[in-house]
Amino acid sequence: MSKSRLLRQRIADQGLVQVMAAHSPLSARLVEEAGFDGIWASGFEFSALHALPDMSLVTMTQHLETVRAMAERASPPIVADLDTGFGNAINVLDAVPRYEHAGAAAVVLEDKTFPKVTSLVAEGRQELLRIEEFQGKIEAALAARQDRDLLVVARTEALIAGAGEAEALKRAAAYEAAGAHMILVHSKQKTPKEIESFVRAWDGKAPLVLVPTAYPELTVPRIRALGKVQMVIYGNHAIRAAVAAMQRVFARIRADQGIHTVEAEIAPVAEIFRLQGMDEVKALEARFLR
Amino acid sequence: MSKSRLLRQRIADQGLVQVMAAHSPLSARLVEEAGFDGIWASGFEFSALHALPDMSLVTMTQHLETVRAMAERASPPIVADLDTGFGNAINVLDAVPRYEHAGAAAVVLEDKTFPKVTSLVAEGRQELLRIEEFQGKIEAALAARQDRDLLVVARTEALIAGAGEAEALKRAAAYEAAGAHMILVHSKQKTPKEIESFVRAWDGKAPLVLVPTAYPELTVPRIRALGKVQMVIYGNHAIRAAVAAMQRVFARIRADQGIHTVEAEIAPVAEIFRLQGMDEVKALEARFLR
Amino acid sequence: MSKSRLLRQRIADQGLVQVMAAHSPLSARLVEEAGFDGIWASGFEFSALHALPDMSLVTMTQHLETVRAMAERASPPIVADLDTGFGNAINVLDAVPRYEHAGAAAVVLEDKTFPKVTSLVAEGRQELLRIEEFQGKIEAALAARQDRDLLVVARTEALIAGAGEAEALKRAAAYEAAGAHMILVHSKQKTPKEIESFVRAWDGKAPLVLVPTAYPELTVPRIRALGKVQMVIYGNHAIRAAVAAMQRVFARIRADQGIHTVEAEIAPVAEIFRLQGMDEVKALEARFLR
Amino acid sequence: MSKSRLLRQRIADQGLVQVMAAHSPLSARLVEEAGFDGIWASGFEFSALHALPDMSLVTMTQHLETVRAMAERASPPIVADLDTGFGNAINVLDAVPRYEHAGAAAVVLEDKTFPKVTSLVAEGRQELLRIEEFQGKIEAALAARQDRDLLVVARTEALIAGAGEAEALKRAAAYEAAGAHMILVHSKQKTPKEIESFVRAWDGKAPLVLVPTAYPELTVPRIRALGKVQMVIYGNHAIRAAVAAMQRVFARIRADQGIHTVEAEIAPVAEIFRLQGMDEVKALEARFLR
Repeated sequence: MSKSRLLRQRIADQGLVQVMAAHSPLSARLVEEAGFDGIWASGFEFSALHALPDMSLVTMTQHLETVRAMAERASPPIVADLDTGFGNAINVLDAVPRYEHAGAAAVVLEDKTFPKVTSLVAEGRQELLRIEEFQGKIEAALAARQDRDLLVVARTEALIAGAGEAEALKRAAAYEAAGAHMILVHSKQKTPKEIESFVRAWDGKAPLVLVPTAYPELTVPRIRALGKVQMVIYGNHAIRAAVAAMQRVFARIRADQGIHTVEAEIAPVAEIFRLQGMDEVKALEARFLR
Repeated sequence: MSKSRLLRQRIADQGLVQVMAAHSPLSARLVEEAGFDGIWASGFEFSALHALPDMSLVTMTQHLETVRAMAERASPPIVADLDTGFGNAINVLDAVPRYEHAGAAAVVLEDKTFPKVTSLVAEGRQELLRIEEFQGKIEAALAARQDRDLLVVARTEALIAGAGEAEALKRAAAYEAAGAHMILVHSKQKTPKEIESFVRAWDGKAPLVLVPTAYPELTVPRIRALGKVQMVIYGNHAIRAAVAAMQRVFARIRADQGIHTVEAEIAPVAEIFRLQGMDEVKALEARFLR
Repeated sequence: MSKSRLLRQRIADQGLVQVMAAHSPLSARLVEEAGFDGIWASGFEFSALHALPDMSLVTMTQHLETVRAMAERASPPIVADLDTGFGNAINVLDAVPRYEHAGAAAVVLEDKTFPKVTSLVAEGRQELLRIEEFQGKIEAALAARQDRDLLVVARTEALIAGAGEAEALKRAAAYEAAGAHMILVHSKQKTPKEIESFVRAWDGKAPLVLVPTAYPELTVPRIRALGKVQMVIYGNHAIRAAVAAMQRVFARIRADQGIHTVEAEIAPVAEIFRLQGMDEVKALEARFLR
Repeated sequence: MSKSRLLRQRIADQGLVQVMAAHSPLSARLVEEAGFDGIWASGFEFSALHALPDMSLVTMTQHLETVRAMAERASPPIVADLDTGFGNAINVLDAVPRYEHAGAAAVVLEDKTFPKVTSLVAEGRQELLRIEEFQGKIEAALAARQDRDLLVVARTEALIAGAGEAEALKRAAAYEAAGAHMILVHSKQKTPKEIESFVRAWDGKAPLVLVPTAYPELTVPRIRALGKVQMVIYGNHAIRAAVAAMQRVFARIRADQGIHTVEAEIAPVAEIFRLQGMDEVKALEARFLR
């Protein structure tokens, strides 16, 4: 079964799937082992891995290769963060089949202009794409698919941009009308209120996707209780876990003048070997090296 | 001052420098912030990031680009793990100037054959390179340098290969004679005995480099007491810290059905922004975006 | 129909297929337009494009990406030059599915050691791989295939290495026994004699592949007359044509102090637009840009 | 001497330098051997090599790596075509030091919006960037330089966009005011009239750069006679020469059923070896392989 079909089936079976961010084949493998339903090939985590701001500085080439490498080494369906689609609808037409071929089961496009700017930028620049222009991008993504099961998710930044719930609902409806299979709606409020209000007000048929980074109290049971939501994305917890751990371990090694006190806190070398598939390779060497 | 000169100076000033493994620009930045003297651009960590065995499967192209990206985002001198040099002396001649240009302050070459095989492989394949052939590689690395301060470190796997201390000493001497600036000697014994014995027996002029992964009780004070050693490399502690943390955090999120219980254990989003340099970018936007 | 199946069918239908070298998606497209049956993703041409000797200096990453880009922009089946397989059988196991996934319809592996050296190197280094070791590589390639139609071609350099016809025949038979679908045999004699003798003496079932670079008088009719040969590869004529033309045109522009005298000799800009697919893009812009 | 300094000196010495397009290290080497003063790392040629429209589909990663590979294998100063700068001023800040480090001696930025669209697109989309926004990009390029000799060339598409000479002159003056070292002005008229009129009307201090693709009768003597112009770029003659030659040679081989009739028209294999540097490698093998 294709990964896109598998993702659709998991959604159908479970009602709500949980997708965890990854930034490398290794973290993708850990996402798989932890039992998540899918891997979020996060632009934010990938930019962070490069110690670069998430502002269209890491190129499609680099992100795409990582998606491919993830798909080669981890089984769960990959939900690929295409950001704004790397330019206009022509770039979307170019990108979608590449991501599909690299192994993506779903692609997410957002309705901001390219390149992204920080939210501190003077008024007038943080603006959202015109609705019709973004509809063109959604239609481009749909037309460019070779795999009819590939999910196209439209993400609206209307709440983030301060455009209000009415605008967010209008955009979500327009994106559904353009063919988007799911609508991702994002908020930076510190509580789930704004998002919960949106979910209650949403009367479209397209299921919703939430990313509760800023309001962690929006748990799976609470999301299920809301209804309408079929995917939750944990958007940056892999890299945040890794950073905190490296900071702690590095500090300990510096303070203790050696690595003798950190063993209990870090994965054994044998565990890394296991994740690299060393045993499989030994078996292959025995079979093919002469 | 060039990074290679800075590394030489740190060695001269401190007697013993501590170099921590990294696998990405982000982890390199954390190495810098923790105050280590250098960054180990580890082939093992980089293979692990790709969830691939450390067996010459990740290509020079991929490793080199990561070294370049590290040098662009972190200041400490980079000690680049060139493995066996990606082939023979011609490959070394090709690789060294590329790594230099990418920002390496030192390169490490090891005396195994390319491609590496696991230690389970039948006898006769785990063999070391002939001494003269490896001397040719060292001379190639020296000749290919454009920066006269670039350090060329010769790594002998003689102890790992079970060839004994006499062979290890003979090889170290031969590599010094070929011009190697430092000798890295590796052991997989569970205690520092074998390595300490080697260090005591070594009467060459080239300073030594140790990698105490298997015998963590070999701390900095104990290494200083030994003498002759001028660099200690912590070979895989960044990725091992990251893996354990992701496993813990992922398991917690699965168990608790949400991200509400992991916040205290992971880096805040604001900390990731800081590491990405978001504040600098905001200042640049204010200056250049109109 | 898959490209591997298409290649097999062309061989079955035509008896002998003609495969032309390419070094880029553009040259691959020209190969297609000229009506050749397949594209030779040539390591030699690709090294030449990089102005580097064909000595394992260009990495698998770089070659593989070009194969993928060719497959995205040209339809004929691609015969991928895997050289020695980038290392040992483990590298072959790693490489074959990547090339398959990138779009290769056939892979060619040669029985020299990695990395390659020039033929001037002192005796003893130009040696061929042990037969059993190369058989392991062929078996690895077969086992690693996910597409049962992918053709695995074994190339023997026995004649090039001066090992004689008997050795070449012995190796060809051993490679067929290991499962190779076709045998490529190469000679650097200035006439077809050596090759024709080999073809006549070959009594295996695996069809042969020839590369008549050094003996151009071995035309298609003459190869057909020989029998047993089912593929002819024109190994480097794309890059050789391009080089001569650039040299001529550049010299003319230098001599004439301008570009006014070369128009008749070079492709019009409109022809480049056509090859780039500008008309398709205009249609797509009209449809999706709003 | 740095390549940027060399380029400045050539301009100072010769008054007018001639820069030829290349799309690969090999073509860059041929540009060098033909005696041109610089290499135009052309976005158009590079897109064409990928058989993709020149519409921001090939990423910075891919173009940058080719610039680096050119600089490694060819000596003339490289004038890098940065297109619109891959996004906004923040992207320019990111790109310029990368191109500098890869070996560029000059960078060219153009005043169109990103991503580019074809000229058939409905009115309102082909528009030029606001002047102040493009000034921000020029200032970003200047501020991001680490090499004080790097030339920043501002390219105006005002004539191409049909905005007229007055607008082109106004923009050129504004770009000079922002610090651009040279102004590239482009026209798609079939005769040099429009461009010659612009040159005569230009009263700025920044020297001009012309690209006479559409009006080949604008030869070096005629440009010299105009004055004010210090660089002429032959924008696409490498790829156009290569395409025509491959088409001719491929057609001949198809028609003649073999390669026996094309030898006189293509470069000998030995010539490719020479361009690859095989003799140097043989010398290096003799010295370092043991």
